[in-house]
Amino acid sequence: MSKNFAVIGVGGYIAPRHLRAIRDTGNRLVAAVDTKDSVGVLDQYSYDVKFFTEIERFDRHLEKLRRGPEEDRIHFVSVCSPNYLHDSHCRLALRVGADVICEKPLVINPWNLDALEEIEAETKRRVHTILQLRVHPGLIQLRESLQSSKDIHDVELTYITSRGPWYHVSWKGNHEKSGGVATNIGIHFFDLLIWLFGPVGGIKVYHKDDDKMSGFIELERARVRWFLSVDKNDLPEQAKIGGKTTYRSITVDGKEVEFSEGFTDLHTRVYEETLAGRGFGIKDARPSVELTHDIRSAEISPLDTLPHPLLRK
Amino acid sequence: MSKNFAVIGVGGYIAPRHLRAIRDTGNRLVAAVDTKDSVGVLDQYSYDVKFFTEIERFDRHLEKLRRGPEEDRIHFVSVCSPNYLHDSHCRLALRVGADVICEKPLVINPWNLDALEEIEAETKRRVHTILQLRVHPGLIQLRESLQSSKDIHDVELTYITSRGPWYHVSWKGNHEKSGGVATNIGIHFFDLLIWLFGPVGGIKVYHKDDDKMSGFIELERARVRWFLSVDKNDLPEQAKIGGKTTYRSITVDGKEVEFSEGFTDLHTRVYEETLAGRGFGIKDARPSVELTHDIRSAEISPLDTLPHPLLRK
Amino acid sequence: MSKNFAVIGVGGYIAPRHLRAIRDTGNRLVAAVDTKDSVGVLDQYSYDVKFFTEIERFDRHLEKLRRGPEEDRIHFVSVCSPNYLHDSHCRLALRVGADVICEKPLVINPWNLDALEEIEAETKRRVHTILQLRVHPGLIQLRESLQSSKDIHDVELTYITSRGPWYHVSWKGNHEKSGGVATNIGIHFFDLLIWLFGPVGGIKVYHKDDDKMSGFIELERARVRWFLSVDKNDLPEQAKIGGKTTYRSITVDGKEVEFSEGFTDLHTRVYEETLAGRGFGIKDARPSVELTHDIRSAEISPLDTLPHPLLRK
Amino acid sequence: MSKNFAVIGVGGYIAPRHLRAIRDTGNRLVAAVDTKDSVGVLDQYSYDVKFFTEIERFDRHLEKLRRGPEEDRIHFVSVCSPNYLHDSHCRLALRVGADVICEKPLVINPWNLDALEEIEAETKRRVHTILQLRVHPGLIQLRESLQSSKDIHDVELTYITSRGPWYHVSWKGNHEKSGGVATNIGIHFFDLLIWLFGPVGGIKVYHKDDDKMSGFIELERARVRWFLSVDKNDLPEQAKIGGKTTYRSITVDGKEVEFSEGFTDLHTRVYEETLAGRGFGIKDARPSVELTHDIRSAEISPLDTLPHPLLRK
Repeated sequence: MSKNFAVIGVGGYIAPRHLRAIRDTGNRLVAAVDTKDSVGVLDQYSYDVKFFTEIERFDRHLEKLRRGPEEDRIHFVSVCSPNYLHDSHCRLALRVGADVICEKPLVINPWNLDALEEIEAETKRRVHTILQLRVHPGLIQLRESLQSSKDIHDVELTYITSRGPWYHVSWKGNHEKSGGVATNIGIHFFDLLIWLFGPVGGIKVYHKDDDKMSGFIELERARVRWFLSVDKNDLPEQAKIGGKTTYRSITVDGKEVEFSEGFTDLHTRVYEETLAGRGFGIKDARPSVELTHDIRSAEISPLDTLPHPLLRK
Repeated sequence: MSKNFAVIGVGGYIAPRHLRAIRDTGNRLVAAVDTKDSVGVLDQYSYDVKFFTEIERFDRHLEKLRRGPEEDRIHFVSVCSPNYLHDSHCRLALRVGADVICEKPLVINPWNLDALEEIEAETKRRVHTILQLRVHPGLIQLRESLQSSKDIHDVELTYITSRGPWYHVSWKGNHEKSGGVATNIGIHFFDLLIWLFGPVGGIKVYHKDDDKMSGFIELERARVRWFLSVDKNDLPEQAKIGGKTTYRSITVDGKEVEFSEGFTDLHTRVYEETLAGRGFGIKDARPSVELTHDIRSAEISPLDTLPHPLLRK
Repeated sequence: MSKNFAVIGVGGYIAPRHLRAIRDTGNRLVAAVDTKDSVGVLDQYSYDVKFFTEIERFDRHLEKLRRGPEEDRIHFVSVCSPNYLHDSHCRLALRVGADVICEKPLVINPWNLDALEEIEAETKRRVHTILQLRVHPGLIQLRESLQSSKDIHDVELTYITSRGPWYHVSWKGNHEKSGGVATNIGIHFFDLLIWLFGPVGGIKVYHKDDDKMSGFIELERARVRWFLSVDKNDLPEQAKIGGKTTYRSITVDGKEVEFSEGFTDLHTRVYEETLAGRGFGIKDARPSVELTHDIRSAEISPLDTLPHPLLRK
Repeated sequence: MSKNFAVIGVGGYIAPRHLRAIRDTGNRLVAAVDTKDSVGVLDQYSYDVKFFTEIERFDRHLEKLRRGPEEDRIHFVSVCSPNYLHDSHCRLALRVGADVICEKPLVINPWNLDALEEIEAETKRRVHTILQLRVHPGLIQLRESLQSSKDIHDVELTYITSRGPWYHVSWKGNHEKSGGVATNIGIHFFDLLIWLFGPVGGIKVYHKDDDKMSGFIELERARVRWFLSVDKNDLPEQAKIGGKTTYRSITVDGKEVEFSEGFTDLHTRVYEETLAGRGFGIKDARPSVELTHDIRSAEISPLDTLPHPLLRK
């Protein structure tokens, strides 16, 4: 049976992927909230969406639906608000009897996962998150091939995605609100690496500023050099020449992992899994949340033999 | 020589057409402001755009550029903010020595045009507006064909463009901020009709609510029945069946004016005209601003023989 | 034992009375939230108050305290936010395991009381409101004297309290947010009248605009003509001459009820009663919420023999 | 003749002193703006104040008055907004033909004074600021007594004024918006010291964090050790015991300067001086703005023989 969805943060950048996933999984969007009112995007999905600019009024509406006929209540709340509000918006959803599908990172700080787990238990509702690389066909295949041996691999992760000055003016540039570069643009990759190569042994952080971070991670079956940046000057020459503004590369033992294809509709795939009871929960989200938290709070290590090549330029 | 542009309201719905027009006319976007910080759209145009969330800091930046080298100063400010702020943002631009390209409606109330004209005179800068139907090739042709005779035509204007509940929650649904349906979605058409058929003789308004308005206008060479709505229930059956959410029709003496094609990049065309010194100024904007103001403040007339057919349903 | 309090809306006009009541009843203010950050007033009460400008972060903090040691959890939340947010903020408090002391009007619309009652039942926490005239010594005395007979009294209520143009610009001037004049400035008096003279039989409303409202109420033991206004032009001559900006009068059978004294610290009195288990709950709030809702939605009656004298001027 | 005033930031902490000064110098408050709508304070001064919550609409109103009859135009704008908006709000005032009385610090960064001076010249209007210690009778006397000799004095400035956690959540705790402790709570004292002892020779800064700053200044005729803090733990024991929350001390050659009296209505005194053409202009504001800017950007010096005693605890 078709489910009723409500979306928090519907005016933001990532919301359309959730709107599409709701529609493409055959469900209904019935309510939405955003502090800004520029949400004409809704008209592409439905003309029957109650809209609010204040979370309090949204909460009132969801409470009203909870007390009304079963077919009207909200079954799922999709959370697309700024990172630092995720856990609070998840709580709101659980309290009105809804399950949650929350953008990554589920939370910025690991202890907020504990609180969410307790409220899950109290409300008997579940929080899921979007770890979309785990449903990417090429990466699933890679994982299977890696699982067969216990070898320790050498991995290099490079992700450079240019952002203009607006990025630092927005909540994304505010560490308290976004968690900084490692959390905001890196968490997917860190989750992927742990999923591929096992739990974290130790970390080093060599560089940390508003634009870029770089470090080393020892995983059960990999030694990872990573470099993340939103500064276009970090793009490799070949990317610049080609007019590319994003460069993404993962190499395993020097061999490039091919995963540039297959990114379409990963949100929809995660929705499908979640609706089928195979979603990613708090337990799944925890390792990468802990890792990024540790990276954020780590002391800077002096450069040794381990850094990512871009740091040694 | 390439001009420097700044955009006010860069996070809103209509801003991308201005961003595209700036780029496609070979100019540079160098600064932008929006009260909301979700403006990743900028990265599609340039990575060198100073961004602000407060109009005061934007003003400081423009003042600084005004006092710096000539090649750095802002030549044009594009105003894409909510309607009720247009004139204030135009003033800001004129005061820092820039010309203006302002979204329609230039202002909600005609007396604000007087103030803008005076500041134009004081600052020697010009305010232009977007009256894009006047650069539509099919409509230019229609105008020429009509110009040849003094006949009085019977015109029917129907524009129904579905909007969900968010519309009424947003500034667009607030009459004080948008001017209401006739101003917000209708002003282009009213400008077009005056441009095609000459000045307004008299008006009647038969219906006026948050969702729709309808009335009659006597122009020098036409008698116009008009109907404007954001309510999807007003769509004609054939549109509903075809899954259309917008219905736009102008008939002249019972014959449909074909203008569904040619809408691409009309903003860019207006920019080209403006940069070539053939833009639409305050004088051009005035008649439709006055007409929509009169419509807004008119008493409701009892239905007589003149109303638009959709009102007689 | 001393209780921990948190205050929602601490930067507003009425908050200091709550801050004082918390202090003067020997309790501790430990957390506060307001969307505006101009809350230096806190320093007059305590230097140990966690402060938030976002309700989501405030909620996170209260949840954290709920999960910590018993002596740290919030026992009471005082709600001083704009009227239309009261019920949502009460829900927030109940959900984190706190009791509530909420400014009047508890809610704008009666059906929101139903939802609050259900959440009270679910959470085993209680919502109380400020009906401070019920603890005014002179009015308690009046009530006792009236209780002795079943006579039907003629009552005239006049309350004129001048407000400048800011009032109509603020949420108080927005009917949806404040409930309008009868609700925002009148509800205390309507509660008082019902408390003194018994339940409502019927009502008439003669006048209703943004500035003033006037009508007639039949109570079990009184016929009430009432007039409420925020327009200084309605002040009686003697008040104007004396430079007064507020005029408050209740007459019973032509005799003035004296209650200008004794207004000091009525909030503190209500807090004392509430802490002693004798507070005013949803049941107490309901009759005046229903009455003001009925007044708001009533048709205007033509003037007959019953109106308040100020309407007949 | 009585002047017309408008106030920017009328809902904030410092605004009432300006409202009082406007009234007590016999002038008229006719317009006000604040982003928050909780401005009932206005009713204590006048019921005829146009109020706005958006600077754009306020600007429209002032422009309208500028174009109307001379007796209606705004003669003075009082700026009480957050520090980082001061210069932008001064510009707004100058552009609508008003003179300005701006709270301290006039600007955070000295280069913004240059821009203001140029706009003063363009508009023929003047910017004044509040340097109220310069009109304090006891300090005027001190200055006269010091002027008679060329001695170099040893000065110790200690100012500790407790603030709760809200301070750091508000704009005051944001260095970019307030300038930090030295600028926000210290600038009066730095202006005073320069005014008493002549221009700055050199500075050292020993300590700098969100709560406190401390350093050394060489002035023409004084060597100053200073300590500024908003942390109540820095209060001297005697203050703590007495329940004081603020400690203010200036000693000259070991002798306490008595200036605890005479603080009443210094804003009104500054208004009187300004209206009489003896106000403090950009030139007067500059030295302390430059000094606090230098302090803000200084490297931390290692502790040597010069620090303030509280640093050596």
